[in-house]
Amino acid sequence: MTKIGILGYGNLGRGVECAVKAANDMELAAVFTRRDPSALQIQTEGVPVVRAAEAAEWKDKIDVMILCGGSATDLPVQTPEYAKYFNVVDSFDTHAKIPQHFAAVDAAAKANGTAAVISVGWDPGMFSLNRVYANAILPDGKDYTFWGRGVSQGHSDAIRRIKGVKNAKQYTIPVEAALEAVRSGSNPELMTRDKHERECFVVLEEGADAAYVENEIKTMPNYFDEYNTTVHFISEEELEKNHSGMAHGGFVIRSGRTGMKKEHSHIMEYSLKLDSNPEFTTSVLVAYARAVKRLAEEGVCGCKTVLDIAPAYMCEQSGEELRAHLL
Amino acid sequence: MTKIGILGYGNLGRGVECAVKAANDMELAAVFTRRDPSALQIQTEGVPVVRAAEAAEWKDKIDVMILCGGSATDLPVQTPEYAKYFNVVDSFDTHAKIPQHFAAVDAAAKANGTAAVISVGWDPGMFSLNRVYANAILPDGKDYTFWGRGVSQGHSDAIRRIKGVKNAKQYTIPVEAALEAVRSGSNPELMTRDKHERECFVVLEEGADAAYVENEIKTMPNYFDEYNTTVHFISEEELEKNHSGMAHGGFVIRSGRTGMKKEHSHIMEYSLKLDSNPEFTTSVLVAYARAVKRLAEEGVCGCKTVLDIAPAYMCEQSGEELRAHLL
Repeated sequence: MTKIGILGYGNLGRGVECAVKAANDMELAAVFTRRDPSALQIQTEGVPVVRAAEAAEWKDKIDVMILCGGSATDLPVQTPEYAKYFNVVDSFDTHAKIPQHFAAVDAAAKANGTAAVISVGWDPGMFSLNRVYANAILPDGKDYTFWGRGVSQGHSDAIRRIKGVKNAKQYTIPVEAALEAVRSGSNPELMTRDKHERECFVVLEEGADAAYVENEIKTMPNYFDEYNTTVHFISEEELEKNHSGMAHGGFVIRSGRTGMKKEHSHIMEYSLKLDSNPEFTTSVLVAYARAVKRLAEEGVCGCKTVLDIAPAYMCEQSGEELRAHLL
Repeated sequence: MTKIGILGYGNLGRGVECAVKAANDMELAAVFTRRDPSALQIQTEGVPVVRAAEAAEWKDKIDVMILCGGSATDLPVQTPEYAKYFNVVDSFDTHAKIPQHFAAVDAAAKANGTAAVISVGWDPGMFSLNRVYANAILPDGKDYTFWGRGVSQGHSDAIRRIKGVKNAKQYTIPVEAALEAVRSGSNPELMTRDKHERECFVVLEEGADAAYVENEIKTMPNYFDEYNTTVHFISEEELEKNHSGMAHGGFVIRSGRTGMKKEHSHIMEYSLKLDSNPEFTTSVLVAYARAVKRLAEEGVCGCKTVLDIAPAYMCEQSGEELRAHLL
């Protein structure tokens, strides 16, 4: 049995707990929290909740620590720190900062003989894998990534910072016509506006100016000004009732050409339709926890990403079973 | 530059030639044939065409030999044989016989210090990868693989063996309603008949009995009797004009559930729409030739499959470039 530790018990921590329960070869060893452990009620009976500050004492009782903090401020500090004591997996998802995060985690892991996998989930993660496989196979082609339909936390937060807004949720929606154009193999040049639209559900503070808020949203640089955006004003009750789900998904498509005269077109498409973004993300984290334990057992240390790990390492089944039944 | 050899110059051999030309880091060293080399005209200038019997003399002049024979009788003999001299890649696609082919190639490669990758292409190959990733991530779920629309060589051959048939092409077609049911997350139990239908284009010998041929097709055990089958009788000219393309494709879908009460459903879908089945297959072969050369340089020997190879090994780009741009 692989002994898993969870650091941080928010949506991701709870998702890891579920996914570990669903795996036959894993058990949850402990949940680590920066909150008061006595105030935390977890869903797995008999598993201790421990102060994060005491985690190092669990060095020999945990095979893989899954880090469930956020990418903005938690993981840049936590992943290198916990890689001193544990094999670790994280879901660091700030694409532009992956190289520096990789360097920090790699240095810590190599100095301490541990193995780490960063940026695990679906994007980065499964979407990255599909971009890389498709690029390797069809070097003459074009990549398209679409996200949604799903709530973007960053865009929802941006709306909430506008004066007069009490609460808000923002959905990122892929434009169907753009998807169809890509699938046709015509390799269209798509502007930001062509690929996604944005739909906002906003609860106003009492007496707030709806026209002002709508204009602030639609003209907000980077977040909304380059998109077709729809704004709906609704009540707090309606927001709670209809917009508290965590569904998400998206599409990775590569359209490429082969042949001596580039006369043949090929479309490779990968898509996800997820009822629960955090539970799917953590299902990926747990599969890579299995991989990182195996790498560590082989003596591998340092930082890896999903691109560096053979798929068989993620599976409970042996190589023989995989070749006989899934190949 | 990776020096590639091609053994066998049919559709696959010609596809490898195209894909090697499209790769910046590869060059075609020689084409090996069992035919008379002087009778063979290849498309790359200045590359020698050599008798297959003389291949062993090229041991030090080729990094990877790509075996372009058929799975029925060529590859079971050729892959273990050529693994004695070369790092090899093949597209062995008889699923049921993969374990024994693997064992034979593994023994030959280990005895001679070479590296081999078998069963590369799209199914087995990219479809297998997607089944394995999806199973590792969603252990509680169900797999669905659909093929088509595309010509099945085996089914076309079966029709041609019927008395009175001069020529024939058979298309395997996924049933749209079944695809939609799977995508809905309802995890339907699908019979053979529900998943695919078969469409046959048949040219009769002069004076042949069309009703007899149609009945022979529709009642043929294993090949057609469990499917809804449509038969069209057409002229040789029409067959040549409209049915000589090599388009193919298909879908791999896993529908799975997560959550403490299995309350969340997720759909992972991978699909290919290919203008040229052999050119896509060989694009995959060539990407894995890059991987097998790297494995060999690391001192790996023996047989591998796509499940054992990390995606980064297939890419021209370095790890740094992949992390910065595709992760």
